[in-house]
Amino acid sequence: MKTLDVQPIAGGITAPGGFRAAGVSCGIKASGEPDVALIASDDTVSAAAVFTTNLAQAAPVLVSRDHLERSGGRARAIVVNSGCANACTGADGMAHATEMAMLTASALGCDPAAVLVASTGVIGVKLDMQKVERGIHDAFGALSSSGAADAARAIMTTDPFPKESAVEISSDAGTFRVGGMAKGSGMIEPMMATMLGFVTTDAVVDPFVLQRALRAAVEGTFNSITVDGECSTNDCVFLLASGASGVRLGERELPLLAHALSAACEPLAVGIVRGGEGATKVVTVRVVGARSDQDARRAARAIANSPLVKTAIHGGDPNWGRLVAVAGRSGAAFTLDNAAVRIGPVELFSDGSPHDERSDDAARYLAGSEIEVEVDLGTGGAGRARMWTCDLSAEYVRINAEYRT
Amino acid sequence: MKTLDVQPIAGGITAPGGFRAAGVSCGIKASGEPDVALIASDDTVSAAAVFTTNLAQAAPVLVSRDHLERSGGRARAIVVNSGCANACTGADGMAHATEMAMLTASALGCDPAAVLVASTGVIGVKLDMQKVERGIHDAFGALSSSGAADAARAIMTTDPFPKESAVEISSDAGTFRVGGMAKGSGMIEPMMATMLGFVTTDAVVDPFVLQRALRAAVEGTFNSITVDGECSTNDCVFLLASGASGVRLGERELPLLAHALSAACEPLAVGIVRGGEGATKVVTVRVVGARSDQDARRAARAIANSPLVKTAIHGGDPNWGRLVAVAGRSGAAFTLDNAAVRIGPVELFSDGSPHDERSDDAARYLAGSEIEVEVDLGTGGAGRARMWTCDLSAEYVRINAEYRT
Repeated sequence: MKTLDVQPIAGGITAPGGFRAAGVSCGIKASGEPDVALIASDDTVSAAAVFTTNLAQAAPVLVSRDHLERSGGRARAIVVNSGCANACTGADGMAHATEMAMLTASALGCDPAAVLVASTGVIGVKLDMQKVERGIHDAFGALSSSGAADAARAIMTTDPFPKESAVEISSDAGTFRVGGMAKGSGMIEPMMATMLGFVTTDAVVDPFVLQRALRAAVEGTFNSITVDGECSTNDCVFLLASGASGVRLGERELPLLAHALSAACEPLAVGIVRGGEGATKVVTVRVVGARSDQDARRAARAIANSPLVKTAIHGGDPNWGRLVAVAGRSGAAFTLDNAAVRIGPVELFSDGSPHDERSDDAARYLAGSEIEVEVDLGTGGAGRARMWTCDLSAEYVRINAEYRT
Repeated sequence: MKTLDVQPIAGGITAPGGFRAAGVSCGIKASGEPDVALIASDDTVSAAAVFTTNLAQAAPVLVSRDHLERSGGRARAIVVNSGCANACTGADGMAHATEMAMLTASALGCDPAAVLVASTGVIGVKLDMQKVERGIHDAFGALSSSGAADAARAIMTTDPFPKESAVEISSDAGTFRVGGMAKGSGMIEPMMATMLGFVTTDAVVDPFVLQRALRAAVEGTFNSITVDGECSTNDCVFLLASGASGVRLGERELPLLAHALSAACEPLAVGIVRGGEGATKVVTVRVVGARSDQDARRAARAIANSPLVKTAIHGGDPNWGRLVAVAGRSGAAFTLDNAAVRIGPVELFSDGSPHDERSDDAARYLAGSEIEVEVDLGTGGAGRARMWTCDLSAEYVRINAEYRT
């Protein structure tokens, strides 16, 4: 890559050419807020997806995975409902997810296997298919090349704000776009905990390359965030490539494509953390000096999920001892005598000794809402990793302890 | 074993013959509360220990491990201070822990390698050795065969109550006793998070058998509890066997010994959970129907550490969906269609279908303070595990978010 320019643009998932979207209300949510989203490409195009690794997988996850396999990585549309996860719903749930694909296919005039399905909301409750049918009908009627914002609203459960992004990439290979939207783990009403991401591009990409690029992009973005260490029954990220830009990206351009996808996914992923339950601070956790990137990731994940670290940051407490203790128990190689902890620009521990005289500086830094912490594992290795998390507040407990009525 | 009777008795760590103990105050704690404990056997006897797996190990952990290796599993005494963890304190910390052993050895007239050392309290702060020296001197003077309760108080940091236990075992091998005391992860003052356990027995046991029996007993007791998934820099469990009962337990009696040790350790372990930060409920997590015991343990640990499960129980919400979701992501083999969830006596999910009509019964059960939840992983396997945890309350966040001043 000699030239590479990535510019944020407006337009979300319909910013790339070849896509229309819609978001409508069909009454699944008692509040009357939008609850069905539809993303359609003009033709059946290359598609890729990554799914939750949870073994308790919701019906729409099973159906979408099956459709993507049967179609050989090709899709025409993605249909999504919010307000009901269609998870732990037995045989009826599978029939309902399949029917969502059939209804969408029949409206668009395509093979049902070319439709991907996602649901988010309450676990263990069945879909009201009369409502869903009306929702898909209305969404089809509302499809528009400027419908991205409506779609982004219709996938929300209790997210505090919609999450959209789009970028235009100028490169030696040509100029193309990537758009995306996501919903986070709101859980303000208990039993809603889905992370859904939807990404579009107008590059010309084979399904095989698309899948590899998506997996690479997700690793450093959606798979690098945590709100509370939980992984839902419905999590998935879908990617469609319309080819409308005419810019062809093959194996050789895989790093370019992954980079472009990451540029669209990162703000969505960080947005999910920012909108995390009870969150008041976004925390970037960096781990360096690890024996391998994998070790660094293990330590970063342990720190990002540690209730002691998250409560200390919530309270503005520069409690470096907790970071050392979590790094030490994370399973990553760790050498205490060479380890170091930095909170923002302030080094509080290095070469086995505390610098508590700098505590006040660190406390002042922690009063902000965008926090960076860095732990050097002290092995002298070049392994490094980055994760995003949020603080843990009493509000998180209140939200999740409330009786589900 | 034809006959086996396990009776709870009074007396804590001095209930078994051959031990004296003391707890005194030397001023490490500003509050003036007791902060030095000493356990001494009449002779140098068989000893065993398990230490934190955290790679950031405190000086007393390193010193005790070294002493136990050099002595070949023999010890005369254990000296403990609370109020300062002597962790992340560099070369001075090592010198101080070594000096604690030397001061104790010189009082008792034994080899310094026959003294084990433990510390608990604030991380990153050095010990005031003048105070510690006075404490060890006073504790030696106060040693008594009825000093267990004083010792149990002197190892507390911010535990809400002391934790002692003792049992008398009548078996074919003879009648012997096991006593114990422990301190939990109080953390009411941030940066204190040590789990320490001290166990004594008057059985005659070789160090090799003693170590294996301790490891087995710890696995099902201290290693089966969690308050917040954290593992400290100072955790350890020590065991001394005086032989005063004359009852000889060899390899053949290893199951009997492990059983006896477990009987003394279980109430201490559950006591740590009961005194967990902000805890209002003790929760027993049972996992059955796993492919292996290891898988069951993996799922039980994930459930016991899940903030979503712990907040739901805190709120009295029979949210079985969270238990399914955590079991599914735990890494254990899991078959949703055959899985089941029980909250107390109430089955809320089985064979892939919810029984939400029983929610009110489960909610009534959850209003209690001693909770059992059981998840069947649905694999048809015989693997099972049990763990204890507590609920997650807003008080936990308040305690741990408070600025360390």
